[in-house]
Amino acid sequence: MQTLYVELGDRRYPIFIGSHLNPQQLLEPYIHGQQVMIVTNTTVQPLYLDHYVAALEKLGKKVAVCVLPDGEQYKNIEHLTLIFDALLEAGFNRDCTVLALGGGVIGDMAGFAAACFQRGVYFIQVPTTLLSQVDSSVGGKTGINHPLGKNMIGAFQQPQVVLADMAQLKSLPARELSAGLAEVIKYALLADIEFLVWLEEHMEGLVAGDSALLAEAVYRSCAHKARIVANDEKEQGERALLNLGHTFGHAIESYMGYGVWLHGEAVATGMVMAADLSQRMGWISAADLERTKKIIQRANLPVACPKIPLEEFLAYMSHDKKVLNGQLRLVLMKQLGQAILTKDFDVELMTQTILANQN
Amino acid sequence: MQTLYVELGDRRYPIFIGSHLNPQQLLEPYIHGQQVMIVTNTTVQPLYLDHYVAALEKLGKKVAVCVLPDGEQYKNIEHLTLIFDALLEAGFNRDCTVLALGGGVIGDMAGFAAACFQRGVYFIQVPTTLLSQVDSSVGGKTGINHPLGKNMIGAFQQPQVVLADMAQLKSLPARELSAGLAEVIKYALLADIEFLVWLEEHMEGLVAGDSALLAEAVYRSCAHKARIVANDEKEQGERALLNLGHTFGHAIESYMGYGVWLHGEAVATGMVMAADLSQRMGWISAADLERTKKIIQRANLPVACPKIPLEEFLAYMSHDKKVLNGQLRLVLMKQLGQAILTKDFDVELMTQTILANQN
Repeated sequence: MQTLYVELGDRRYPIFIGSHLNPQQLLEPYIHGQQVMIVTNTTVQPLYLDHYVAALEKLGKKVAVCVLPDGEQYKNIEHLTLIFDALLEAGFNRDCTVLALGGGVIGDMAGFAAACFQRGVYFIQVPTTLLSQVDSSVGGKTGINHPLGKNMIGAFQQPQVVLADMAQLKSLPARELSAGLAEVIKYALLADIEFLVWLEEHMEGLVAGDSALLAEAVYRSCAHKARIVANDEKEQGERALLNLGHTFGHAIESYMGYGVWLHGEAVATGMVMAADLSQRMGWISAADLERTKKIIQRANLPVACPKIPLEEFLAYMSHDKKVLNGQLRLVLMKQLGQAILTKDFDVELMTQTILANQN
Repeated sequence: MQTLYVELGDRRYPIFIGSHLNPQQLLEPYIHGQQVMIVTNTTVQPLYLDHYVAALEKLGKKVAVCVLPDGEQYKNIEHLTLIFDALLEAGFNRDCTVLALGGGVIGDMAGFAAACFQRGVYFIQVPTTLLSQVDSSVGGKTGINHPLGKNMIGAFQQPQVVLADMAQLKSLPARELSAGLAEVIKYALLADIEFLVWLEEHMEGLVAGDSALLAEAVYRSCAHKARIVANDEKEQGERALLNLGHTFGHAIESYMGYGVWLHGEAVATGMVMAADLSQRMGWISAADLERTKKIIQRANLPVACPKIPLEEFLAYMSHDKKVLNGQLRLVLMKQLGQAILTKDFDVELMTQTILANQN
């Protein structure tokens, strides 16, 4: 097992990464009250819920469960309300803990519920997908979607602890493993050319689900995220770089309707678009762009999106949270392995990029 | 005009208190972006909305408006959603400001929307009722009700600035002015015996709506609140004292149904109950209890509640946010003008108190 810390002063917390982790032992120091609400979904429930309920009950905790339907299309205010209902029906108080057992949707919703319930209760992340292990479970961003935009309503709510167990990835469908690899590749592209070389060496083993390789990829990814979050928790600066591929990706997801493309798939194509625009701006070479596309393709991820009318694509992009004073800002690559947040891009070139990366 | 500061480090903010304040001049330094969403209600809209829209437009801001129905019964997730809809339909971004123009319900809802929209945007409070001027507009507590409990879902979201304009109280119904005086009396009872003496001298003028007296009462009340909030923003300790009368009061409000009793009316009776229990515990004298009842009665506030079945009263009390590890804690008076938060009260005496203060 490897341990990383997200250094946030008195809200410092560990990420435990390994296979067949012991939740009873690892969670005990991080549960402060007597009440734990496990939020999970119908897919994860039959696989892992009993294991966690048993561990928590052995610790003497009062455990309640809220099971949501599985899918990004349920990441909305109606289903968030079900968590509040469950907390109040269980009679839970301000000293309770909300434990997210599931992927990014469950983590985002449970974390937002923890942020809002009684104006804030304790929160623990047990991410069961690769994507949530390397991305959403670390850093405290939580929230829900709105019909007019993704993650438009939310809060910063740091967990007490994160457990990333590779054994739980065995049950993950190949398509979702690939979606997680999109965010892994993102760290390499935005900050770590050596990690890109490592991924190029090991992509076959990662796609095949090798636990040791996955643990290493999760560790390296979380190390980048932990460092960036510690420097810039509220995304005033550097943290925005983690959105490489996301502004284009959010437009694709929003247009397609939540849940049609996986988030990681949209981000994958979004990263190709960011690389494509970076190349048109003259910042990276054509070879760099091809290298970016190649590693994404080897992870079985899409490098182009369906045909989307340009004006609609731009409208969805304009809802992005990185818009400041009405000015769209994009995360692009100044060079391969070095991302920047910039408003100084050519809008005509951006249009070319969007049109060039559609099927 | 008098100015108080809530000392919260880099989130320090001023409360401006006076009559016929100039919003254009006072707000300008505290609006950081170009977009302002005014959240108000159907009662306040015809009285004051145009004045604020004009002031903001003179500052060159893009102004949008979200008008909610008036009343505590609308302080719920459905009506909160209307604010998010308005923000997204206006195309507002992460650098926008949400301005609450109204009473406590509007301030709580607009503040919670500001806390959650894009994970947090700027917020300004323009409280138009006495109750919100002395209580909810200061200190950053925001939120909505749930069918199973009041203010169960919310966030701490400090405003950039608070404008408390006594001129706006001229339009306030007498019943609501009295409800505000309940919270004014609360500060005297919990922390300031000299303020109680001042209120006993000036209650007739306050009830009659004398602007100079009201400004002084608001200033003294906000000074207490600002000091307590600066010491204990997240209510880990001292801030809980501000809930004097509120655990009993919330039970009354919840049982009656939101909006039947005004919050201040329920708190008034709740303070009588807290004083009654404090007297039964031997902490304050019978004369102190009578003095408490007398000042509340002189503010035209109720000192007893309708008949509520005991088990229901206790069930609503157990949903209180001050419950810790299943243990109910109450704010009582160790002596008149000195409140304490305690779990060491006699449950049998509490039962007597509830039964003794019903009509």
